[in-house]
This record gives sequence, C-alpha cells and structure tokens, in this order.
Amino acid sequence: MMAAYERKARASASRKLTQQDLLYESLRRAILDGDIVCGTRLASSRTLAEELGIARNSVLYAYERLVEEGFVTATRHGSIVNHVKPAAAQPAARVPPHEGDAARPLSRRARELPPRRAWAGGATALRPGTPALDAFPLAQWRTAVERAMREVHASELGYGDSAGLPALRHAIAQYVRVSRGVRCQPDQVFITDGTQTSLDLCARFFADAGERVWIENPGYLGARVTMLAAGLTLVPVPVDAAGMAAREEDWREAPPRLVYLTPSHQYPLGCVLSLERRLALIEHARACGAWIIEDDYDSELRHDGPPLPSIQGLADDTPVIYLGTFSKTLFPALRIGFMIVPRQLAAQVATAHRTLMRQGRVAEQAALAEFIESGRYARHLRRMRKLYETRRDGLVAAIETHLAGLMTVSADAGGMHLSVRLDAPLEDVAVSEAARARGLALSPLSAFCLDGVDGADGTAGADSVRYNGFLLGYAEATPEAADALMATLAEVLREML
Amino acid sequence: MMAAYERKARASASRKLTQQDLLYESLRRAILDGDIVCGTRLASSRTLAEELGIARNSVLYAYERLVEEGFVTATRHGSIVNHVKPAAAQPAARVPPHEGDAARPLSRRARELPPRRAWAGGATALRPGTPALDAFPLAQWRTAVERAMREVHASELGYGDSAGLPALRHAIAQYVRVSRGVRCQPDQVFITDGTQTSLDLCARFFADAGERVWIENPGYLGARVTMLAAGLTLVPVPVDAAGMAAREEDWREAPPRLVYLTPSHQYPLGCVLSLERRLALIEHARACGAWIIEDDYDSELRHDGPPLPSIQGLADDTPVIYLGTFSKTLFPALRIGFMIVPRQLAAQVATAHRTLMRQGRVAEQAALAEFIESGRYARHLRRMRKLYETRRDGLVAAIETHLAGLMTVSADAGGMHLSVRLDAPLEDVAVSEAARARGLALSPLSAFCLDGVDGADGTAGADSVRYNGFLLGYAEATPEAADALMATLAEVLREML
Repeated sequence: MMAAYERKARASASRKLTQQDLLYESLRRAILDGDIVCGTRLASSRTLAEELGIARNSVLYAYERLVEEGFVTATRHGSIVNHVKPAAAQPAARVPPHEGDAARPLSRRARELPPRRAWAGGATALRPGTPALDAFPLAQWRTAVERAMREVHASELGYGDSAGLPALRHAIAQYVRVSRGVRCQPDQVFITDGTQTSLDLCARFFADAGERVWIENPGYLGARVTMLAAGLTLVPVPVDAAGMAAREEDWREAPPRLVYLTPSHQYPLGCVLSLERRLALIEHARACGAWIIEDDYDSELRHDGPPLPSIQGLADDTPVIYLGTFSKTLFPALRIGFMIVPRQLAAQVATAHRTLMRQGRVAEQAALAEFIESGRYARHLRRMRKLYETRRDGLVAAIETHLAGLMTVSADAGGMHLSVRLDAPLEDVAVSEAARARGLALSPLSAFCLDGVDGADGTAGADSVRYNGFLLGYAEATPEAADALMATLAEVLREML
Repeated sequence: MMAAYERKARASASRKLTQQDLLYESLRRAILDGDIVCGTRLASSRTLAEELGIARNSVLYAYERLVEEGFVTATRHGSIVNHVKPAAAQPAARVPPHEGDAARPLSRRARELPPRRAWAGGATALRPGTPALDAFPLAQWRTAVERAMREVHASELGYGDSAGLPALRHAIAQYVRVSRGVRCQPDQVFITDGTQTSLDLCARFFADAGERVWIENPGYLGARVTMLAAGLTLVPVPVDAAGMAAREEDWREAPPRLVYLTPSHQYPLGCVLSLERRLALIEHARACGAWIIEDDYDSELRHDGPPLPSIQGLADDTPVIYLGTFSKTLFPALRIGFMIVPRQLAAQVATAHRTLMRQGRVAEQAALAEFIESGRYARHLRRMRKLYETRRDGLVAAIETHLAGLMTVSADAGGMHLSVRLDAPLEDVAVSEAARARGLALSPLSAFCLDGVDGADGTAGADSVRYNGFLLGYAEATPEAADALMATLAEVLREML
C-alpha cells in the first residue's frame, strides 16, 4: 500500500494533490479494494509520517477523514479498519432482466430506437440540413451577442422564464405573423433548444403512450425517433406530389391523436401540401380531436415565389402546433427553436413546460430578439435566398450536364436541398456507399421510408414507384463545386452499371 | 373586401408589406372566411388596379399567387374562386377523448404532472437553488466567452458532436476524477443542458415505462416529475440522518430498476449517505440489475471538511450514472450539465444519444472547458465556499438569535441551503404563505414529501416525525440581511401563534 502511495505521489505531482489528500486516497482505495482488511490496526501517525517522510499533521488529517467517512474507527488502541465490504447481499430478486441482459444493456425503448445512420461517414459534400456556414455574418452575430452579454445583469444569470425570454417570444410572434401568416400572441410561443426538443414536448404534451401519430412516409427521421421514444404508435401515411396523402377512410377507421408533417417543403421529397389538403386536414383534425404538428423548418428559403402561408394561419384557432427553428436560417450550433401552441392551450402548456423544463441563456436569446427586431434577420434571409437559388441552379445544371438519363430532379422549389430520382437500375443505398469513398454525402431516399413500407402501396394518391434516389443539399456547394461533384457521381454510377 | 384592403393598407404601413402582398393576403383571407364565395369571378386586373389606385402588376402578382396556391383558377373568362371550404368531413371517428375533453386539453401524462409550485410568488429572499449571482465573476466569464467566440470558425457552427465538445468532456472527466473521486474516461461523459435533461435521458435510456424507480422521500421534485413524465413508477423510500434508508426486504421483494438519490447533500434534508449504505447500495444494485442515479448537484460546496467522494468512484465499474451541473457552481442561465455513464454502456448511450439529441453551442462549451482547465473554476469554487460558509454562519446565528424555541437548524454542513425544523405548533405551508407577503421565499419541507406519505411510517431507520420545516437558501443573503429576515420571520410566527 505504501508503495502505491509513493507511486501515486510521483505520478500525481501534476494533479496538485496535497500529500494528505494523496495519503487519504491511497488508504481509502486500499480498504475498499480489500488490500487492507477489516480489523487491521493502522500504523500510528508518528510512525507513518516518519516512514513516508511527510508531516505528521498530514497523516492525522488523512486518518480523521477516514474516520469521518466511516472507513476507520479511532480507538484507544489506535485506528482500526472497519468492515467496509458489505456482507454478500441476501439473495436478491432480480429486476426482470432486459432482454439479453448479459451486458446490462439500455432500456428496451432506448435499444429499439432506430440508430441514426451516418450516410456521410467522413464525407460532407452535399449533406442536407447544414446551411452555408461560410456565408453566415459571424462577425455581426458576435457583435450582437457581445452587446447582449454586456447588458446582462448578474441578477439575470438565474433560471429564466421557463417559456423563454419575453423579448424573444415577442419578436418571434411578430415575425411569423407577417412572414408566415401564423395567427398568434407571444404567450403561445415557447422557446426550445431546437426542433428535436419541440417534437419531444409535442409528443408528450399532446399525446399519451400508445396513441397513434401519423407521419409522412418517406419522412423526417428525427421526428420518427422522437415519437417512438415518447411511446407513440407510428402510422406511416404515403406522400405524393401534393404532400401527405391521407385517405378519408383512415380518418374514419383509425383516427390519429397527432399528425406530424412538413407541409411547406416535404422532407425529403420536397413537395408542397396542397391547399385542399391543408383545409381538409384542419377540418378532420377538428372533427376527431387530433393535433397537427406543422414542422416549418425551412419554408422561408423558398426560391420560386414567396413561401406558402402556414396551415396554422388558415383559420382562427386551428388545432395546429407550429414548429420553427433558427438552425436552417441562422446556424445549427445556436440551438434555438420554438413551438407555437394553440391559444386555448397556452396556459396549460406553460404549466407543464415550467414543471419539466429549465431555461436560461439570456444573452443569446436577447441577441436573437434584437437581430430579428432590427431587420437584420430578414436581410440575412434575403441574402441566403439569393445564394441558395444560385446554388440550386448550379446543382440542377450540373445534374443535367453530367447525369442526364441517370437521375432526374424531382423537387427543387425551395430550401437548401433537392431530391432526385435515380433512373439507373441501381439501389440508392449501394450508390450512396460507393459515393462516400469519393467524398460525397448522399442521403438515399429509401432510408427515409419506414421499414417494410414502400413509398407506394396502392393507397389513393400515392404514386406507384418505390422511392429510389437521393436528397442532395446544395447550401454549401458553389456551382463550380456542384459541377465537379456531379461529374464524380456520374463516374461512380457508370462504374456500377 | 376592398374596404378591408384599404383598412389594412393604412394599418400595415409599419409592417412594410408591399401592396401586392397586402392585396394577396386580403383576398386569401376573404376566400378562406367565405366572404368571397366559390364561383365568384374576380374583377379584371385592370379594373381592380384602377379601383384601388395601385399598379396593375401588383394585382397580377396577387392573382398569380392565388392561382399557384389553389385559391383561384385562371380561365378564359377570368379568375374564378375555387371551392376552398371543404365539404363537411364525413362523420369522423373521434380519438378516444382525453378525460374531460371539452376544452381539448393536454395529454393525460402532461396533466398528471404535479405542477411546480412557486412557493416564492414574487418573493426571492432565501430561495434555494440560485447561487450568489452578484459574486459571480461575470466580467471574467464574458472575456472567456468572447475569446472562445473569436476562435470559433464558421465550419464549427453546424451540428456538433452530439455528446458534447470533446475538450469539455475531457476537462470534466479530469476534474471529477480529482475532485470527486469519479472513475471515468472522457467518452463516458455526456454534456447536457442541465440536470433536468440528464434525468430525462436517464429515465428513458435506463428504464422502460412502468418500471420502478426508488426516490428519496422527501426528495427533489424536479427528479420526481421527470421520472413521472417518462412513465416510471415512483417508489418513495424514507430518508433518515444517514440518508436514503432502504430496507433489505425492499430489495428482495420489489427491486427497482433505478434508484435516484442525492447522497452527498440530501435534497431537501441535507444529510449525507453513510459509507455503509453506499457500499450496500452498490452491492444490491449489482445483484439485482438496477442502476443508481447519483445526483451530485452541489457536493463541492461543502463547508465542514472536504466533500465525501462519490458513490460512482467507490469501486471500478459501479452501476452508477453520475450527474453534475454548473448551475450551482457557476450560474443557472449557463444551461450546461453532464452525465457520466458506466464504461461498459458508453458506446450504447452514445448511439441512443446521437439519435435523439442535437448539440451545438461550441463557444460556450469551449469557454467552459478553458475555464476549468486554467484552474479558474477551482479558484471560483474556493471563493464561493468561503462566501457561503460566512453566509451559512450568518443565517444560523440569526436563527438562534431570533427563533430560539421556534425553529431548529437540522442540517447545514454544505451547499447553499440548510434545512430547519419548525418547533412551533404551526404548519409549514401556512407559515410559508404568510411569510411570502413579507418577501420571504420559504420552501416548506412537507411539500417535498410524496402526497399521502409521511416522512416516517415506521420503516427501519426513518425517524418518527412528519417533516415540518423549511429549506432556506443562504447563497444570496449576507449575514446582515439574514438577521433582518429572521427577525421578520419571528414576527410572522408570533402573529400566527
């Protein structure tokens, strides 16, 4: 044990432990590990101090601490080591083991989450979901945050209003009213740290475990896993050129509690939900007591004409929870998103939200509120729309140049990505894997389909092809880069044919 | 309709809508609201432009947009309004209504969350959980964040490593190894936005819905609601002077999947879990396949001697998930906490975590890593320990001066709060309410007990009094302030007796 002490004394010089801490720790560890057994009388403090060449006070300190913590009892005959290895526990009932318990794995619900496939590997070219970070006005944003930080008073460093900074809720309400036709007051706006958290709150606040949620198929995987993690039953609904194609009989026979969709820019296919379907959705949801979760993740980046107004704002008091995020329009690392709940539920949501969530980050929220109110946010968006339009055009042209007959662009009206159909007789997953080695991050469309469900299964409104193609993000690709990347992709395809 | 257009044109000048947007929006709203019925032929663009005194192109733009969005069909005979009010939906099945569905309330699981009582109302004096914000080195922290922000490259503004910034995971692992005796590597550390999120992940990653979680009674309400929200079955375990007092037969008869506890500084009573119970806990948890959640929220602020080492580090590969936070040691608005999972589960947790969570906030994480590594964090803690010790002493002296015979301090060895027993024949909740009007935020101990369960019910080790007293936070109270506050409280009590 004393050898261990000396070894540690040398090894830990850099950790700045005092000698007394070190001695205490060595003794404690030795007792716990059974190297010093129960009943042992420790050397007197004087003896040990001499032996180790340290101050006697250091030894006394270590012994006292061991006594305080129950490792040692001080008696007239010296310091006696206690029995700290507990008696073998009486035969315990085991918790019914998780399936295949040998390795003591995670809960069933954690293990059953479909893992997030990294299609990219190390590749990043054409990945969707990340905006043009190099075009972000980082210096301007830094200034905004620094100014906000200087204005923060110490008293604001505590737990903030759990729904978010009032100034930011106000700025967002104002902004989405004008830009997205959302009908709301600031008290309906709840700040979250992004859409994943918004979705988790929706799943748990608006549905109970076992209830049905309709999801688009193919659809956004992040929403799917969050709904699964909340114990909901996923019901895939096919998507066609006019968006999610629910049938009348679905509403009659097995109505959902929640309907999750991306109406402005369907993820991943890119289509827009038709007005007729939007109105029908509201009508049906009202009739059967369902809630619509409208994920409006990038609607403001529409290139061909202004974005369609939200479902939320098509009528007063729609049964819609509207989700927005600044991850696409500003940058993902900001971690600020929001959900806008129906007016009649705002107070109830505030109560549940306050119970579960803690909020803070006052400087970042204040900076964002000011960024929006000053008009800099809208200006940034205008710049980005132009940039993305140029990049979209570049990518489309590159596909037409290099991949005619092999791939067809099927939806490219907005956002930061487009979807393409693979016309060559190849599997998108196989192509994606081959392309990764060449630095391309292609997300295969088939991976967005719920396992075992084809894109089409004869249901009304669904087209009759299995989804085979890619989601291509162009936010980070200049037209020149896109051209080179598509030339590479053409080579990859030709090698596989 | 045109009157509406003109009214809006005046009202919305400040919203900077263009005339064409405004016309489009007015027409859209009128069609949706049924003011312009299906089949109506809209005035020709020339006529309407003259009538409104706006450019014909603006009218053409608005009409085109309405056509695109499906509100209007362009025919040879002019623009005809479509049928946009859908046929009354066919009689829909209703989702089995949430109980008392009239107001379309939240899910049952959201409504059943015990609401977070604000004992304080507007009062803040003596609230627990908020550190001495005015003593926080805000300028120093600001400099650290600004430096980190200047070093952030645009490419780091995307989604970060979902487990957190590697530099911060490394700094935390290093720090807790030395300061808390935690045995871990950086890959076991997961950065979260605070203990509430850590707890939610624990509840869902390590237990399935319906499984038992043991919680301390009285105990931390934030943990209780999170476990409830995750669908777990709460089993209250009494607490005595040596911490959570589980009985051998509890382990045999109804073993838990999770055990949640605050061993270093029991919340709210303030006691420390004995070494014997720590070891027994590990032994039993191992035997029955349970996980221990060790919430070490403020252990480093211990005043009487160094903090006890963590349960996690008492042996190799303990079945412990260790939770830490910077909300108490730095400030709550930072929103950074962490969980440290067992080594053998690190890879599985990383997969599930990556699937559900998105991470970012690279500048704040880098600033915190640097704050820890440079030793400034440890220095700040030393300063705070001294400050809190002085304030603790001040509050204890004030209680003895003004409340002798009415209240007894029962645990004050560390942290930022102490607990007191109410000796006067009064109910803590009633006293708390009366004191609120005088600016005091007293958290009644009885509110931390699970409803219907007394602090003691004859179980081994539990003392035999019902908890009646308060949790008093002294972080923000100077000795002078504490003296005045206790004088006020004495008045409140005397008025009630």
